[in-house]
Amino acid sequence: MDTWMRFMSNDGGIVFGRVEGGYLHEYESLEQPVPTGAVLSTRALTPLAPCAPGKVIALWNNFHALAAKLDKPVPTHPLFLLKPAASVIGAGEPIRRPLSYAGKIAYEGELGIVIGRRCRDASVEEAADAIFGYTLVNDVTAADLLNENPHFPQWCRAKGFDTFCCIGPAIVSGFAWQQAHLVTKLDDVERQNYPLADMVFSPAQQVSLISQDLTLEPGDVIACGTSVGVGSIKDGATVSITIDGIGTLSNTLSAAHAEPVAPVPPGVAAGVV
Amino acid sequence: MDTWMRFMSNDGGIVFGRVEGGYLHEYESLEQPVPTGAVLSTRALTPLAPCAPGKVIALWNNFHALAAKLDKPVPTHPLFLLKPAASVIGAGEPIRRPLSYAGKIAYEGELGIVIGRRCRDASVEEAADAIFGYTLVNDVTAADLLNENPHFPQWCRAKGFDTFCCIGPAIVSGFAWQQAHLVTKLDDVERQNYPLADMVFSPAQQVSLISQDLTLEPGDVIACGTSVGVGSIKDGATVSITIDGIGTLSNTLSAAHAEPVAPVPPGVAAGVV
Repeated sequence: MDTWMRFMSNDGGIVFGRVEGGYLHEYESLEQPVPTGAVLSTRALTPLAPCAPGKVIALWNNFHALAAKLDKPVPTHPLFLLKPAASVIGAGEPIRRPLSYAGKIAYEGELGIVIGRRCRDASVEEAADAIFGYTLVNDVTAADLLNENPHFPQWCRAKGFDTFCCIGPAIVSGFAWQQAHLVTKLDDVERQNYPLADMVFSPAQQVSLISQDLTLEPGDVIACGTSVGVGSIKDGATVSITIDGIGTLSNTLSAAHAEPVAPVPPGVAAGVV
Repeated sequence: MDTWMRFMSNDGGIVFGRVEGGYLHEYESLEQPVPTGAVLSTRALTPLAPCAPGKVIALWNNFHALAAKLDKPVPTHPLFLLKPAASVIGAGEPIRRPLSYAGKIAYEGELGIVIGRRCRDASVEEAADAIFGYTLVNDVTAADLLNENPHFPQWCRAKGFDTFCCIGPAIVSGFAWQQAHLVTKLDDVERQNYPLADMVFSPAQQVSLISQDLTLEPGDVIACGTSVGVGSIKDGATVSITIDGIGTLSNTLSAAHAEPVAPVPPGVAAGVV
């Protein structure tokens, strides 16, 4: 098992690499995991989400316990929606309540699969090889919007707000998810504690089946769906999601306030030319 | 009105600019529309989709005529799903039937809004200023998948396959959409002919309201929804969408065949580091 993180350095540059004993051993990138030779103390660095996905694929109804509670049959193909890149934040960053929404905001603690290489129409074996590692996801939802319109469930809108996809704190490669439990605490009170082995589609099955629908790119994240214990977050409350071996992802919901629109940093916007 | 296109040059580079009389007047980019001084004959260039959106936001039920036909009330907020970047192709490129899907594939001719500057919580006036121009979109759908699972409508999956978002041939800035009609032909037979003035939410209203949900980036595209006349495409058939003043977007549906997975070209994958 190796632990991978992404940081902003003091000069505003972004560095990625393997973390061990308080030091970052820098690598070229997630898709080209070649050491650069640089070693940096992580104390001088600001942690970011461990990858910058072009898209996040979020599964619905992928745990037997939740399907039973909702009284829904388990699906025969992964059921998913897309969360946009701008919804991603890292550990410790605030979840921002939208200015336009005063309703219920829900947490969902989930295992995240981080894609390491481009894959399309992948077999389960090829899919397993395309997984770079695993992380934690809080799949935040503006719950009152989901069924606000009775004719069109608004999955992408309710789950697509800026800051509504917390990812981190690290990616762990070679992680044995089969034995792990995911624990979600809301202000230190345990709300979710479920075994990942209860998944309907395993990570490799998810990657294989979803790659038949759309091409997965390095850095893309699949949020594997949640299980029982989902609930709402009050403004100011902190959600902490833990899987032993990966770490803890903590984010606090901040009340609505106008956010200045930053100019587009170079290289962040879609490459138009 | 100016007409903007994006091309691949013989050396594999990508150029963007204003097209006039068979020549491309190159500009830095869509978000920085500054002329480079270069002028190139378009005959030596291969057309691409006119922008490379990080995300495509596709509206449902945004025309009064279609709402009446479906017997649905018009919505009070844009209803949308997300189509991923990898679904985008340009004019003339083939729509590929997925290997895993033998069912009905539908065309939807739509006006596309191309975002010119980052916007969040924009007023209608700010939103109007953030629109770079207008293009054409064929919002292709694997129609049998939409309601395959009775518990979860699969909008993102059905509309998110690679090549299922045709965009082009050009972006026209300063275009007066209010007077325009959109015409869709299937193998030269007219199937859609509807006035854009029948939209529920105007382009500026769409950009304003959607910017309250998620940050829009330069190059992002909003597909404004379709109206009556949607139908299915047989393998080998060609869909041509025309708005006078913008041009014609033609794409042919090719039968399913295995597509080699290209290595990730530099700069195309999500920037992980």
